[in-house]
Amino acid sequence: MTRQALLSTLLIVITALICFRLHAQKTNSMYRIAKIKVAASQLGKYKSALAEQMRAAIASEPGVLSYTAVSDKKDTTSITILEVYANTKAYQSHIVTPHFRKYKERVKDWVLSLELIDTELVASAKKKDF
Amino acid sequence: MTRQALLSTLLIVITALICFRLHAQKTNSMYRIAKIKVAASQLGKYKSALAEQMRAAIASEPGVLSYTAVSDKKDTTSITILEVYANTKAYQSHIVTPHFRKYKERVKDWVLSLELIDTELVASAKKKDF
Repeated sequence: MTRQALLSTLLIVITALICFRLHAQKTNSMYRIAKIKVAASQLGKYKSALAEQMRAAIASEPGVLSYTAVSDKKDTTSITILEVYANTKAYQSHIVTPHFRKYKERVKDWVLSLELIDTELVASAKKKDF
Repeated sequence: MTRQALLSTLLIVITALICFRLHAQKTNSMYRIAKIKVAASQLGKYKSALAEQMRAAIASEPGVLSYTAVSDKKDTTSITILEVYANTKAYQSHIVTPHFRKYKERVKDWVLSLELIDTELVASAKKKDF
């Protein structure tokens, strides 16, 4: 095999590996919904702790992809979070990080109930800059 | 007033207006959760119709910002959609578009129940390229 042929083969293999990795990342993504009921008197403090945890995880963990937390307009103490992780391994790493442990410790007396729903992506579409 | 002072004042006013607009866009955004129960025998067709509607709305309506639809792993006929519109006016325009009407007509016999929950953003964070 000539040096050029070897180089070409190597390039093809590397490209294929990158494509496979990107595809795997997409299909392995873990989508989860967390439903949280917060004590009304602690709602402001809870929201701050939640936002702080989200920012820290997104900034420092490569496998934490997206968080969106919303509250019901009819009952603002009912919070729903859509969480996206690159894969289940990324999630397992996430729950033992110092920022996640700090969050759990801080909010433990403010959270009245927590329901975790494992889901999978059906479809998504969004504006480029959203 | 000198010409330079006038120019500076104009620049400040324009900057303030842009900032206000960005802030208003952010605070006016409409976040909604739709919970849909689909007939098991029509799930594949329903998912296709939903994905088609989402893509059309994102591509053609400036005020439709983001859709994420997920299904419960324990019951794949239970679908949750997080919808984001620039404001309530954008949503009102959306529901009279041909693609949305077509979607509603197509899925009307496949949807067993629909619950719409008006919510507001608590916090969000995501990776740049997500």
